[in-house]
Amino acid sequence: MKSLAETDFTIIGLGLMGASLAAALRPHCRRTLGVDQDPEALHWCYAQGWIDRGDHRFEEAVSQSDVIVLATPVRTILTLLETISQFLRPGTIVIDLGSTKACICEKMEYLPAGVEAIGGHPLCGREVSGARNADAGLFQDRLFVLVPTGKTSPRALDLAIQLVRSIGARPMLLDAATHDRLVATSSHLPYLVACTLVTTASLMTDPDNFLWHLVASGFRDTSRLAGSDVQMMLDILQTNRPNILRNMKTFAQTVNDLIQILESEDEAQLKNWLEYAREERRRHLQ
Amino acid sequence: MKSLAETDFTIIGLGLMGASLAAALRPHCRRTLGVDQDPEALHWCYAQGWIDRGDHRFEEAVSQSDVIVLATPVRTILTLLETISQFLRPGTIVIDLGSTKACICEKMEYLPAGVEAIGGHPLCGREVSGARNADAGLFQDRLFVLVPTGKTSPRALDLAIQLVRSIGARPMLLDAATHDRLVATSSHLPYLVACTLVTTASLMTDPDNFLWHLVASGFRDTSRLAGSDVQMMLDILQTNRPNILRNMKTFAQTVNDLIQILESEDEAQLKNWLEYAREERRRHLQ
Repeated sequence: MKSLAETDFTIIGLGLMGASLAAALRPHCRRTLGVDQDPEALHWCYAQGWIDRGDHRFEEAVSQSDVIVLATPVRTILTLLETISQFLRPGTIVIDLGSTKACICEKMEYLPAGVEAIGGHPLCGREVSGARNADAGLFQDRLFVLVPTGKTSPRALDLAIQLVRSIGARPMLLDAATHDRLVATSSHLPYLVACTLVTTASLMTDPDNFLWHLVASGFRDTSRLAGSDVQMMLDILQTNRPNILRNMKTFAQTVNDLIQILESEDEAQLKNWLEYAREERRRHLQ
Repeated sequence: MKSLAETDFTIIGLGLMGASLAAALRPHCRRTLGVDQDPEALHWCYAQGWIDRGDHRFEEAVSQSDVIVLATPVRTILTLLETISQFLRPGTIVIDLGSTKACICEKMEYLPAGVEAIGGHPLCGREVSGARNADAGLFQDRLFVLVPTGKTSPRALDLAIQLVRSIGARPMLLDAATHDRLVATSSHLPYLVACTLVTTASLMTDPDNFLWHLVASGFRDTSRLAGSDVQMMLDILQTNRPNILRNMKTFAQTVNDLIQILESEDEAQLKNWLEYAREERRRHLQ
């Protein structure tokens, strides 16, 4: 079995995630080829020494590499799993970095015989995007979820774990359904909540337009995720809809509960409600 | 008229705000007296050189100072405006740092004849509290809202503006009703949204308790305000209820609108909705 240092990688998609992976992985593998339709992204990654060669087409790179990393938005990954398949040699390992896993891992099952595949999701989103914001330290100490599929051999799992550890991340094995259920709460819900907060503030406009001057760090942090890349988030929402809807409905119910408490003027109940939220956050996140 | 450098201050309440004000103001005034019931807060501020003397009672300090700063939670300010009044000399200026202004500024009107008063609100909340987290730089480049009352002479307004500028903040004049309406959106709504997010996540618990492991910086930032001091926030919510309820109801409606869009599976509409939120945030906050 090849070690990481003997392995050739192709990374398709040199946005924030793909370019950061190229940067973090390059010192630990034999070769990284980058594929992106944007010549500037290719040039940037090449100039930084993160890729050994760039290409705007995937055919040649895919047929020459040991591991193919799909680092595009989710629905582009779904398309790529079809279009690259005829160029994959037996023994090639396909890994993706998509933010939802069920649809991708299901599609991986249809890759040609002999091709191996495992789902991946590094938990290190940012609200900035693009190769120029890439950073080899992006994955440092972050969780990197790995989702084995029917096409994940022990060899593929081992190489994926080596990859995750080489970039400073911590591997965590989950099944696709559990992953998608959990990230709907931990990641997709906060994004939609941040968007809802901004939209609400825009609805509360004041004649003198003073509102946005008064915004301090609290509003800024609470709404930060609303700046995320819309196309990327749209892919996520469209491929995890039932989980997200379930979260949004529970959230809506919780908002209504709070409104009722505020309207009841029952201060003791309001205090309990606020203390519960504070304590839950402290207990789990501090 | 006395300049700031000739002015004696008493700061009642040496929590994060009061102690930070003492620290920032001390180099610019003649004397700062600190009043707090907590001996540790008094000792800390004295040891840092932020106050010239500390006292757990306000009577003597109040009767000896030119300016009294009320830096406690809002409803304690309301109580103090009654209890300190018999110790205030004519010509004394009362300023507060409370986060809601209508109830406080209304009460200021009842101070004894000859006493001057102006409402204040520095927009620099943190989710940490206490004198030990205080920082002379807390107000730097932040907005400091001043709310003139019927008891605000030109002299009192001028001194308040001097004070605000001396600690590095930017004064902004608003009336109490406008202030309370705007901060309900810019500050109180994000707090309640953050609490609602945490409570919702707790409701979505998973049997294996993996959820909180998957939480990354996005959830962390969106929920940060849920860690705020509950008693302080309770005072704010209870003294700005109509504005807050109006905001929460608009927020609830916006959540429901989003749920409908998600349920309709109309991707173009969802994209528009997400892009609107992103663009509003970019336009106003970047």
